[in-house]
Amino acid sequence: VFAERVAVVGTGLIGGSVAMGLRSAAPNLRVTGFDHDDAALKEATRRGALTDAATSPAHAVEGADVVVVAVPVDRVGESCRELLPGLGDDAVVTDVGSAKSRVVEEAQAVMGGRFVGGHPMAGSERHGMSAADPRLFDGAWWILTPTSQTSSTAYARVSSMVGLLGATPIALSPQTHDDLVARVSHVPQLTASALVEMAGASADRETLLGLAAAGFRDVTRIAASHPGLWAGIIKSNHEAVLDALGRLRAELGSVGRLIEEQRWDDLEAFLEGARRARLEVFAKPDFGGEPIALWMMVPDRPGVLAEVTTAAGRLGANIEDLRIVHSTEGGRGRLELVIAGADRAQELTDALTELGYLVEWGSPE
Amino acid sequence: VFAERVAVVGTGLIGGSVAMGLRSAAPNLRVTGFDHDDAALKEATRRGALTDAATSPAHAVEGADVVVVAVPVDRVGESCRELLPGLGDDAVVTDVGSAKSRVVEEAQAVMGGRFVGGHPMAGSERHGMSAADPRLFDGAWWILTPTSQTSSTAYARVSSMVGLLGATPIALSPQTHDDLVARVSHVPQLTASALVEMAGASADRETLLGLAAAGFRDVTRIAASHPGLWAGIIKSNHEAVLDALGRLRAELGSVGRLIEEQRWDDLEAFLEGARRARLEVFAKPDFGGEPIALWMMVPDRPGVLAEVTTAAGRLGANIEDLRIVHSTEGGRGRLELVIAGADRAQELTDALTELGYLVEWGSPE
Repeated sequence: VFAERVAVVGTGLIGGSVAMGLRSAAPNLRVTGFDHDDAALKEATRRGALTDAATSPAHAVEGADVVVVAVPVDRVGESCRELLPGLGDDAVVTDVGSAKSRVVEEAQAVMGGRFVGGHPMAGSERHGMSAADPRLFDGAWWILTPTSQTSSTAYARVSSMVGLLGATPIALSPQTHDDLVARVSHVPQLTASALVEMAGASADRETLLGLAAAGFRDVTRIAASHPGLWAGIIKSNHEAVLDALGRLRAELGSVGRLIEEQRWDDLEAFLEGARRARLEVFAKPDFGGEPIALWMMVPDRPGVLAEVTTAAGRLGANIEDLRIVHSTEGGRGRLELVIAGADRAQELTDALTELGYLVEWGSPE
Repeated sequence: VFAERVAVVGTGLIGGSVAMGLRSAAPNLRVTGFDHDDAALKEATRRGALTDAATSPAHAVEGADVVVVAVPVDRVGESCRELLPGLGDDAVVTDVGSAKSRVVEEAQAVMGGRFVGGHPMAGSERHGMSAADPRLFDGAWWILTPTSQTSSTAYARVSSMVGLLGATPIALSPQTHDDLVARVSHVPQLTASALVEMAGASADRETLLGLAAAGFRDVTRIAASHPGLWAGIIKSNHEAVLDALGRLRAELGSVGRLIEEQRWDDLEAFLEGARRARLEVFAKPDFGGEPIALWMMVPDRPGVLAEVTTAAGRLGANIEDLRIVHSTEGGRGRLELVIAGADRAQELTDALTELGYLVEWGSPE
């Protein structure tokens, strides 16, 4: 296993599910936990999510190989400062926040390249330890956001943990991640709430609510999510959210103009385009394909890992596994990447060759 | 039963489901059908939705007591003109269009008070006869939109048919209906499409699509609906849609301002308000309550029925049943309404008393 001891700081829905998932996948693993809310910590212990409950963040992380900071996204920096005194020299740290640029910057300022940002693409409109589920991440993508500072050990260890939880690690730069989630998650969230408000602003509220068919139910389901959590997420990603919100308002503005000008064929074409895109999204829930291993010798210096994973992220190639074996000759290491699908592997090979790497490929070892 | 013979003009998802639902609830009923698309008509016959397939709208409606016009909403008027030559003197006609003001105006211009507008609040992103389902309307609301012209026979007969399909008839004025569905259905539909377009407008499309978690899936599900059908619906309700779209854009604008001004507490309050409203919507899926019958003597003149059902609609009272027995003395009739819930019944009694009616109430007969 990737670790003997994992610490989970924050035992809410995500932290609790991580702890339970790890306990279920690796029964010998020690999982230490802390939460500022006593009741949540007790519930985590009661449900068998933790082997040990700690009395402070610093105590929780003592002796841990991997620390998962699973607090609300606007409190990750603060949590990193709190746990730092207990952190062992070899420990690596990750978080699960829904926005990454600010969090990663802040956490790396505290603890350097041993921090790698993470964001599991799974959740629920429910929250808290009581909603935790060891299979929450099964089949989900789990974004990791290495930067030029990130150590390869941190990336590899966190990536192994993610795999053990049944999720697929995907490397993206923090900024790319933030732009994408603003569009695919944060702005849809705000829009669901705005739709509820728009629909409900009526004297005839009950009749209106009765008219709400399955479509409205689906569109607004996420509006029932935790307001405090979401205000924190939006705060942590506000530049990207404002940008995406501006794009959405522009889209709605041009739809409004089509209607005002009674351009029904153009309206139909707009709906048809969106329909095709929507079908495309969920016809391709993952990239799939046979696993292909790529090997290359890399200089043993900071930034190499980020260069490689960023190239992969830009191509949309899914890094299923990543390992670095440091050469005994010093100064160089052998990097192994596993990519899903031969087409993707070829594209990534081309990109890496252009960056000056000599890439070999074959079946994963 | 309310009829011996029903004609369904247009055997798509809704018309096909109406036909199948009626056949299943009343096996002795004759259900005649027509569709401009031969394949749809054949499929309807093959699935046992129809007892007879006709070669024209006028032929389909010959001898029918109730005619259900289940064509796209922008073609209801045309369809009414086509079927008129075959319509018997006592036949009543309804439609299933998602917008009502224009449709009702046009249809009543063709055939007067025997037409009562209808809109079942059930559907699917699938379409066509192949997706038809006899239980599609089970437990759903079915809006009926009587006007001052509507005959009480037409309302009562269509309302009985709706009940037989397992749906609950609700009376609203065409304009109220249109305002409400614009907000609860038409604008959410356009918004789902706009969100897909906003999210997908990216070089990094596949990665983005992979990031789409359950929330995005829910919010955009209806964007996969039939573009031609929806362009027609929006066209038929464009004034109300533009108004609701303006309200949504204003909501999104004020959310954007909260973010720009970093007013995180206000943003949380906004999300909290929407959350409460959302939970409220689906905590009250129907009005429920024991059935209460109201009786009153009414003058036998046009407009009385609309006056009563409009009063009920304004209060959000659900008319579960409505019957008029014409007095042999002439000039007056006895109206019976069944309302769900004693509170609603009392409110409606008060409203009707103010309108000058003498209302008695008790258990339904």
